[in-house]
Parts: sequence; C-alpha cells; structure tokens
Amino acid sequence: MKVIADLCIIPLGAGISLGKYVAECERILTRAGLQTRLHAYGTNIEGDWDAVMAAIKECHEALHAMGVPRISCSLRIGTRIDRIQTMEDKVRSVEEKLAADGR
Amino acid sequence: MKVIADLCIIPLGAGISLGKYVAECERILTRAGLQTRLHAYGTNIEGDWDAVMAAIKECHEALHAMGVPRISCSLRIGTRIDRIQTMEDKVRSVEEKLAADGR
Amino acid sequence: MKVIADLCIIPLGAGISLGKYVAECERILTRAGLQTRLHAYGTNIEGDWDAVMAAIKECHEALHAMGVPRISCSLRIGTRIDRIQTMEDKVRSVEEKLAADGR
Amino acid sequence: MKVIADLCIIPLGAGISLGKYVAECERILTRAGLQTRLHAYGTNIEGDWDAVMAAIKECHEALHAMGVPRISCSLRIGTRIDRIQTMEDKVRSVEEKLAADGR
Repeated sequence: MKVIADLCIIPLGAGISLGKYVAECERILTRAGLQTRLHAYGTNIEGDWDAVMAAIKECHEALHAMGVPRISCSLRIGTRIDRIQTMEDKVRSVEEKLAADGR
Repeated sequence: MKVIADLCIIPLGAGISLGKYVAECERILTRAGLQTRLHAYGTNIEGDWDAVMAAIKECHEALHAMGVPRISCSLRIGTRIDRIQTMEDKVRSVEEKLAADGR
Repeated sequence: MKVIADLCIIPLGAGISLGKYVAECERILTRAGLQTRLHAYGTNIEGDWDAVMAAIKECHEALHAMGVPRISCSLRIGTRIDRIQTMEDKVRSVEEKLAADGR
Repeated sequence: MKVIADLCIIPLGAGISLGKYVAECERILTRAGLQTRLHAYGTNIEGDWDAVMAAIKECHEALHAMGVPRISCSLRIGTRIDRIQTMEDKVRSVEEKLAADGR
C-alpha cells in the first residue's frame, strides 16, 4: 500500500532549537530511500506504507538515542486505491488551477 | 518501544456519515489487544509501537476493502524514555491539578 | 458557525512535565464557557467558531506568560452545515454500532 | 502574536478530487495578504494570529458555500516569544545542517 505522509516530529525536553533533530530525521528518511520534501512545519514523505512507518520509528529511536527524553509526533497519512498519485501530482493539480486564474 | 497515540481516520468519497467506519476501526484495534479510548474527534491508543502501527495499517486496509477510495488519517504519536506513563496517568495528572482548584 | 475541535498544545523549552500547562488551558476553556472533554492526547472542545478560537489564542498567550518560550499546537477542527451534531452524538453513534455487535 | 501554521483542509461529502477546494483556500489566504507555501499535504502560512485565523475561518465558510456539507481540518500552530523566526528561517536551518554533511 502506497502512502503520502506528512511528518512533524517535536522533541520535548531538548531545548527549543530543534533543527539538528529535524536534520537527523531527514537523513534517516533519505537513507531509507524515501522521497521527501521538507517544508516549514514538517516533511512530506512518499513511499510504501511499511517503509515509511519503519523510517518514522527509526526517527523516534534515533532522537531518543541522541538524548531526547520525550517526543510528540504529528503525522498525516494519505492512502487511496482509486488511482496512483504522487506528491508532485497533488501540488501541480492545485498550481494549475491557480495558474488558470492568471495568478 | 511503548507508544500513546491518537488516531483520527477520515474516509473520503464515502459520504458524510462516518460512524460505521470508525466502529470498524475500533473493532480492529480491540481485536489487536490494544487499549483504546474513543473520544469525539479520534481514539486514544496505548501499546507497543509495532502492534499499534500494524493495527492502524489494518484499519486503512479494512476501510479500503469496504469500498472507501481514499483515506486521510491524522495521527499523534507520543514516546518517552524517561519513565513509564499510561493514558490514565496523563488524564489523572491534569484532573488532580484541576481538582486542587476546587473545581 | 459551530465547531467541534480537538486541541493538543505542546509547550517547548519548558521541561517534560506538561500537566500544569494542560490544566491551565482547561481552566481557560472552561472560563470561556466552552464544553470540553479531556482525553489522553488532547481535549475535545465544542462551541461557536469565534469563541473556540479566541480561547485557544488565550491558551497560547497564557502559556507564554507562564514562561514557555515556544508552543506547537496540533488542532483538528470540524464544521458541518448538513445537521447539528454534538460531541456526545459523535461518540454515541460509534458506541451504538459497537454495542450492536454484542461487545 | 506572530504564528507559523500548517493547514490541511479536508472536504467531506464532496467527492475525492479536492484540488479545486484547496485552490480556493489558497486564493483566500493570498487575498488576506498572508505568506503561504503550498506542499503535498497542506499549506504553510505565516502571519499575525488574528489574520491567519480569520482567513482559515473564511476557508471553511467558502467551502461550505461551494456545497461542501462537512469539513475536517488538521492545523498545526507554532508561536514563540524568544525570537523572530520566518518559514524560510526554519527550512534554511535544517538545509544548512544537511549541506554540512556534503549532501
């Protein structure tokens, strides 16, 4: 089962500069061979359900191993069986509609 | 790794009466031996990471098998390594503080 | 516009015992006259859009005033125009379906 | 109070091709003078709390006016009082750490 997800991992008890933890998660997702696209409040991820979920588990484990005592993660998971759709398809579909406005 | 999660599964293209789909997810989570607590905008789940994630995958698969073409799921996942904490602990901690107000 | 919401406020840079912050938010929501139901990963809130959003803003402001430098909030917001539905309706609809299973 | 948010609006009972609804929300956010950045599972928004929340309310109202009977919205809201931070700052901070890897 293919999934498009959006991951926002929040380390607690590790200060308020979280960039190094987000960077570590990006490395893990990339090493797992997943397509990712970082944005200002999370990361889009595209891949097979099991591969995506295994990588997210590895992110939690890696951050705890870096000393983060507590993690709260906000995750959106999209699946569909009517057709194949990529992350790029989703963004392009909206951008085309906006371009048609002359925007 | 122990997890406390909160799951809100939204079936798309399946009308606007979603109770039967939520009920099916409850059955799946219960059959998986997980602790759950239904609320008005999702379900708290407590268990081992792998068991929780396997059950959530089964929810997506079951809803698609019921004919739902597309699903968007909003999931919160909490892990901590500093101490053991149950769903009941989390609620009781807040309720005790409120009770101390004389509320 | 009526809304059923689910609020999970995460204070950052304020340690890992968050119960006192959650309790403060509960006080604010109650004082605002909103219906709430605390669970293990957030709080259900029912009320008018403007009243709910004003109270959530007050939660952020109050936590910052308590010294929390950074907050990340995960919020679900449900609106519908087809019919009136309360938080209790949503839970009861699912519980009735499960009860019919003999569960 | 300044906010960086991430908005994912899900129309229910309106089929499974949601691009036109997402495009309408983009138009509303832009007309409101907010900074936005569309991604594959939502939209980053930067602005003043009141302006951001007023625009999100307008999105719900506009989609209902287009005939959508029910909406579920997943929203992340970030506020901080320790320093000014833009959406670009957040992304650049992570990208610089990854670039230092030689990635």
